[in-house]
Amino acid sequence: MSLKRKDLLSLAPLSAEEITLILQTADSFKEVTGREIKKVPALRGRTVVNLFFEPSTRTRTSFELAAKRLSADVINFSPSSSSVVKGETLLDTARNIEAMQADIIVLRHPSAGAAETLARGVKSSVINAGDGWHEHPTQALLDLYTIRERGLPFAGLRVAIVGDVSHSRVARSNIHALSKLGAEVRVVGPPTMIPKGIEKLGATAFYNLDEALRGVQVIMMLRLQLERQGRALFPTIREYARLYGLTADRVRLAEAGAIVMHPGPINRGVEIAPEVADSLSSVILDQVANGVAVRMGILYLMSGAN
Amino acid sequence: MSLKRKDLLSLAPLSAEEITLILQTADSFKEVTGREIKKVPALRGRTVVNLFFEPSTRTRTSFELAAKRLSADVINFSPSSSSVVKGETLLDTARNIEAMQADIIVLRHPSAGAAETLARGVKSSVINAGDGWHEHPTQALLDLYTIRERGLPFAGLRVAIVGDVSHSRVARSNIHALSKLGAEVRVVGPPTMIPKGIEKLGATAFYNLDEALRGVQVIMMLRLQLERQGRALFPTIREYARLYGLTADRVRLAEAGAIVMHPGPINRGVEIAPEVADSLSSVILDQVANGVAVRMGILYLMSGAN
Amino acid sequence: MSLKRKDLLSLAPLSAEEITLILQTADSFKEVTGREIKKVPALRGRTVVNLFFEPSTRTRTSFELAAKRLSADVINFSPSSSSVVKGETLLDTARNIEAMQADIIVLRHPSAGAAETLARGVKSSVINAGDGWHEHPTQALLDLYTIRERGLPFAGLRVAIVGDVSHSRVARSNIHALSKLGAEVRVVGPPTMIPKGIEKLGATAFYNLDEALRGVQVIMMLRLQLERQGRALFPTIREYARLYGLTADRVRLAEAGAIVMHPGPINRGVEIAPEVADSLSSVILDQVANGVAVRMGILYLMSGAN
Repeated sequence: MSLKRKDLLSLAPLSAEEITLILQTADSFKEVTGREIKKVPALRGRTVVNLFFEPSTRTRTSFELAAKRLSADVINFSPSSSSVVKGETLLDTARNIEAMQADIIVLRHPSAGAAETLARGVKSSVINAGDGWHEHPTQALLDLYTIRERGLPFAGLRVAIVGDVSHSRVARSNIHALSKLGAEVRVVGPPTMIPKGIEKLGATAFYNLDEALRGVQVIMMLRLQLERQGRALFPTIREYARLYGLTADRVRLAEAGAIVMHPGPINRGVEIAPEVADSLSSVILDQVANGVAVRMGILYLMSGAN
Repeated sequence: MSLKRKDLLSLAPLSAEEITLILQTADSFKEVTGREIKKVPALRGRTVVNLFFEPSTRTRTSFELAAKRLSADVINFSPSSSSVVKGETLLDTARNIEAMQADIIVLRHPSAGAAETLARGVKSSVINAGDGWHEHPTQALLDLYTIRERGLPFAGLRVAIVGDVSHSRVARSNIHALSKLGAEVRVVGPPTMIPKGIEKLGATAFYNLDEALRGVQVIMMLRLQLERQGRALFPTIREYARLYGLTADRVRLAEAGAIVMHPGPINRGVEIAPEVADSLSSVILDQVANGVAVRMGILYLMSGAN
Repeated sequence: MSLKRKDLLSLAPLSAEEITLILQTADSFKEVTGREIKKVPALRGRTVVNLFFEPSTRTRTSFELAAKRLSADVINFSPSSSSVVKGETLLDTARNIEAMQADIIVLRHPSAGAAETLARGVKSSVINAGDGWHEHPTQALLDLYTIRERGLPFAGLRVAIVGDVSHSRVARSNIHALSKLGAEVRVVGPPTMIPKGIEKLGATAFYNLDEALRGVQVIMMLRLQLERQGRALFPTIREYARLYGLTADRVRLAEAGAIVMHPGPINRGVEIAPEVADSLSSVILDQVANGVAVRMGILYLMSGAN
């Protein structure tokens, strides 16, 4: 079986089989990244363009490394050093990149739907690396990979997603995928951060963290985006940390052996206590490591090189 | 025959034979960029440095891709992340790059003549990727390649270059090359944008677009650099668009089958109507695609690897 | 013999044998950088991350070229395009890079001790590319390489280091290494720029340049960091240049055949007269060229690929 899609824009339309195929493909690349010589010739002579309209360490570097370890040629394009300054439209920029024979465009953009607009306008494969508050499918896929790597079956899995769910593309992609794979998803945060109608996506809303954590096997923390909103949605950061910060005591409310996840970068002492971030329950750095392998798998499947 | 020049600074001194050699060399690389595996080992172990003192998507990315597809090692150097902040002179910066055994330096710089200054000061080959209002030889070469690819012979070819000719290095390079190859070049724009004495370069000045377009086979639009001057040279953008914007009606004044060119990024609805930019007459994206192939050819010829 | 260290943070703890090993290893890479095909497969499939929190041309480009010529995959990470904006700690950033299986992290940071903090926190090898006013070991190693290349034996060598020694990591690293190898090190500058207790590091303080230069074989100029302090430590730049600028007359006070060094970028007419920078005594561009070879040697030794 192979992935019969030009683009990876969202996890909403993917079948459980397609998700499983991606995770299985990532397995062999995980093995590659563990070697001393972390390189395979799979995408030699293919061109991957990272088109990033928002700053990002993890995601841009993760895709760049994934592409390089597949031997692809990678170009980083970021708006500050680009013709965006000159007022070109997103689609014109992308068509230029396509004209240069880009096989795959990895797009991060502040507007929800940007990846879909771009995918419709170009023949290159488009991978959504985060579009506004919409989706961040590769992050959710690496989260799933990390859960699966810990031997946790998705069917019946209890997962709590904690924080600003309304403004989280990571939460949205994870809710789609986890529900589809049979997990029970709880979302928890202050009422201002839990979107109305979240139940329609298959999640249950909680407003009390202690209650939400009881019996879960996976605690997925979201980043409090201090630089974006902060006070507007919550009185003080201190109050937020007291009510929704993950402490060692709270981890004990979850099932024994529960894992703690976070898409990074973490705000130590805000949404997550340092001792939790650095504890044995934490799989935060496994997520980062798996990100490269999962993205190698996705680039490989998207390239049609298989 | 091979190109016996250390540098490519300007099209003014090139002979018709040298221009033809570059276009023919690009042919084989055009074929490479159309393959699934877009890579040849021609410049393996050579070093190409993109030294860009002005922002650019197309040109920087085009050179970077060209170099990578030739298997060269490429370094991007842009002033914001550099010792230019520390007040080093252009020549000292370039001599440092040369000392690191750069085989080819691709320079974009806001000052006319910067490429020549640099070429005299270093042993590395220098390719001018745009120096102020002086020249942009690789852009003109990809324009020529695109015209030739459409089967249009240069001898007797009627070309209209439309817009701010005074401040266009693209126009200047094209006028030199097209005249040399036997084409008839018309330049058209408001009097403030047509340099005095343009006839000496071999072009004829027009101030009315409709008149200039009659019977031409190539319409080469220039970008209105809104961010640079705008109002200073013309009352309003709206007025500019009315008098000098290319519409579908105006394209019909040209010879049947005439092609529309633009160096990008385009200002839709200003110098070019969206329906013209996206029409079958438009070869704008071919120009972008050919840019990579032509630059591969130039890098190859400059490297002495042939 | 091989270098049995995970990291290269400082020259203070290195033995003379270790320094010699690095210089000898650089010899074979110097030969590689002189070839037409400047590339060896030594680090194929290894990952080198340039983590630069301060702008730099020479050092970042030099490491990038060194890594590419060893066939490593290189990622450039600079704070402006990164999650540093989002408030992540240095160590969390580095742990993420480590999690992506970075073999070597090259760090430049404004704080003294940053490289050591990072080295203790990650399993990746860390190379200090300059940390505040502390050390810049690879610069000193390329300086040593350049002295040795000129056939000057270190034992008994007389070296004058001229300028703002207090705020120079280059000076500090050189004093450590040169003393260890048996050289006699003089430091000279205005009293505000010579640290108290410099004698403990093995150097002798001078405040008069002419005196300090008498009989030396190596004149190592430091950059006056105009953008950082300038006036605070000295009345005027003109006065500084008069008292501590290296002129052709002053070079004649040194031993016949003495060499002039500078870590760059140079301020022509401030700490060094243009005719001196461009004279036959000047080895400034040799330093740049040797930088790539020495860094190839260091990356190679650090990678454990040997």
